Amino acid sequence: MTYLDHAATTPVLPEVVAAMAEQLGRVGNASSLHASGRSARRAAEQARERLAEAVGARPSEVLFTSGGTESDNLAVKGLFWARREADSRRRRIVVSPAEHHAVLDSVEWLAKHEGAEVTWLQVEPTGRVTPEALAAALGDGTDVAVASVMWANNEIGTVSDIAELAATAHDVGVPLHTDAVQAVGQVLVDFGASGVDALTMTGHKLGGPMGAGALLLRRDAECTPLLHGGGQERDVRSGTLDVAAIVGLAVATGAAVGGRVERAAAVSRLRDRLVAGVVEQVPDAQLNGAPLDDVVRSGPGRLPGNAHLSFPGAEGDALLMLLDARGIECSTGSACSAGVARPSHVLLAVGAEPDRARSSLRFSLGHTSTDADVDAVLEVIAPVVERARRAGGRR
Amino acid sequence: MTYLDHAATTPVLPEVVAAMAEQLGRVGNASSLHASGRSARRAAEQARERLAEAVGARPSEVLFTSGGTESDNLAVKGLFWARREADSRRRRIVVSPAEHHAVLDSVEWLAKHEGAEVTWLQVEPTGRVTPEALAAALGDGTDVAVASVMWANNEIGTVSDIAELAATAHDVGVPLHTDAVQAVGQVLVDFGASGVDALTMTGHKLGGPMGAGALLLRRDAECTPLLHGGGQERDVRSGTLDVAAIVGLAVATGAAVGGRVERAAAVSRLRDRLVAGVVEQVPDAQLNGAPLDDVVRSGPGRLPGNAHLSFPGAEGDALLMLLDARGIECSTGSACSAGVARPSHVLLAVGAEPDRARSSLRFSLGHTSTDADVDAVLEVIAPVVERARRAGGRR
Repeated sequence: MTYLDHAATTPVLPEVVAAMAEQLGRVGNASSLHASGRSARRAAEQARERLAEAVGARPSEVLFTSGGTESDNLAVKGLFWARREADSRRRRIVVSPAEHHAVLDSVEWLAKHEGAEVTWLQVEPTGRVTPEALAAALGDGTDVAVASVMWANNEIGTVSDIAELAATAHDVGVPLHTDAVQAVGQVLVDFGASGVDALTMTGHKLGGPMGAGALLLRRDAECTPLLHGGGQERDVRSGTLDVAAIVGLAVATGAAVGGRVERAAAVSRLRDRLVAGVVEQVPDAQLNGAPLDDVVRSGPGRLPGNAHLSFPGAEGDALLMLLDARGIECSTGSACSAGVARPSHVLLAVGAEPDRARSSLRFSLGHTSTDADVDAVLEVIAPVVERARRAGGRR
Repeated sequence: MTYLDHAATTPVLPEVVAAMAEQLGRVGNASSLHASGRSARRAAEQARERLAEAVGARPSEVLFTSGGTESDNLAVKGLFWARREADSRRRRIVVSPAEHHAVLDSVEWLAKHEGAEVTWLQVEPTGRVTPEALAAALGDGTDVAVASVMWANNEIGTVSDIAELAATAHDVGVPLHTDAVQAVGQVLVDFGASGVDALTMTGHKLGGPMGAGALLLRRDAECTPLLHGGGQERDVRSGTLDVAAIVGLAVATGAAVGGRVERAAAVSRLRDRLVAGVVEQVPDAQLNGAPLDDVVRSGPGRLPGNAHLSFPGAEGDALLMLLDARGIECSTGSACSAGVARPSHVLLAVGAEPDRARSSLRFSLGHTSTDADVDAVLEVIAPVVERARRAGGRR
């Protein structure tokens, strides 16, 4: 099987499974005061320190959550509520239309039910959000509750310069949240250096478990909780700490960040081979997103493992199924909206025609990818595209 | 080590750890369309069916969440928002003051920020909520958004008759949510037969993992999501399905419910021995909650593993620490509010004096408890209470 859908979820590292299984064998609620409880608390706090160090945060800035969707919802809604409560003029949310649905749908709910007004950011054809576009949308900032721009796009892999965007937002006193689910472990992510106020990350995109994520939140950022209760996690996220998953998340984050530079080089070499080979086999295939030349270093560019291509005249869903029948697993967009037959909102946001958007595939490479995976795609891509085009009535 | 804090968290069953480790070794996002994704989806749906069968629900009524706190928040806020949106007169929440903080703090947030009005239910001295008290609080129901009464109390172990309470709420057209975190696997919980509209349960109280729970939600119950995004779980709870944890939750629920009657008999025998022995050693110790004679069967009574006692003149925190130093682990209340030196809101709600509330300990027994655990407590309880009383200035 050729698994090229690492952006949907990537295999869990064996050391993560081992660490989780070990912790699952220990009893203790991290909120309990007895020895078993204190031991669970210690494991969680060591994991917090390990994760914090890997992403340039202070331990107290790490709030454990159930994953990316929860962190996105907590950041967007929590910052909106807290900032509007502090100053009722702050009703506006400034956000890119290429965000993940966890951000977009949170924003739309706030607009529909909580009186928010939305300003959509202009997105470059590559998918990048520029500081100029953000500055234009923020205005003097007095009526803005929160801005949100993803660090790296989950579909087309475009990386924006989050540090510049955070500085731009701060110039007018607005906090910036960034969804860095796809970025951590792929490009250099340093929470402190980036200056962002809130950062979403999750375990299952970097070799950790599903159901475990974090919101990195600056100490001075006021954030209304989504989950009320026992008062865990600075009283911003209540709920019994899922210690085994937290340990797994920290081990995975440490490994992903520690091995990032070497893995990015290896993965981007495979990705470049894949793109070049596909374009050779299918000459009218088009690469979406940023160029391939920006890898490893910080700043804007493209994720090392992302290859997002359009095949004019072929339906993405047909391509996906034909490849799957040949043992090659990829995606037409994000897994979260898979199954819904509509063109990617990301491609529409970057100005692609609906036909091009509908004819696209995302191959995403990761830590288990090999040259054999690339070979497998190159061997079948031409006949697969040909067949999908015939099925769609072209030629 | 004598672990008598199963109500805070209970050891994970070995078969759960094995099932989770196996699933963690498989890649696949349950929302992906390719073979790995479909395989993950199949594992999640089989788990959904298994869990549903164990608790008398239909599979489509099972919404997987990150645990009890999230389920409580989702039910209380989600039903409140949806019902108020359908009819703006519905601003009132009817709730027991002995609920878990995940319910109480959700209600208080809705009151402070979302215009809810709260009617506190009268609670019997045993901790039970009667249908008469609920009917009195609901009135004609036209202005009520939601009612919430826990199936079994997490501190004193009192079980209310949820089916009667659901019928009472439905008489005036109000949906009932019940926090059954402590009840599932301990007493007979049949979601369909109970008639409740929403039921909160979690894995780590019944031998499953932390970070995995469910909200059982009737198909006709409108519930506004807390987490927006990819549209998973009937669009009520977005977020990548945590398949390994879901599998673990289902295995644990099946085992806990399947072995319930025998385990309840064994655990209640141990619990009865513990209570009788403690009262023999410390004659002025007082049992809180319902009498010990209601076990196993459905209807109001007391959880089989719960022994909640007050030791007049001794501080609960001092008792806890002295016992912990002797290798005996228990609690002064719920783990979630542990560390906060204030009398239990549950004991205050049932009319206990603050001094009695502060002098209480919860021993909670579970699937690993033995006669040796009871012996260990009985061996030290008299000198421990004596010492705590001296430390507190009594005698």
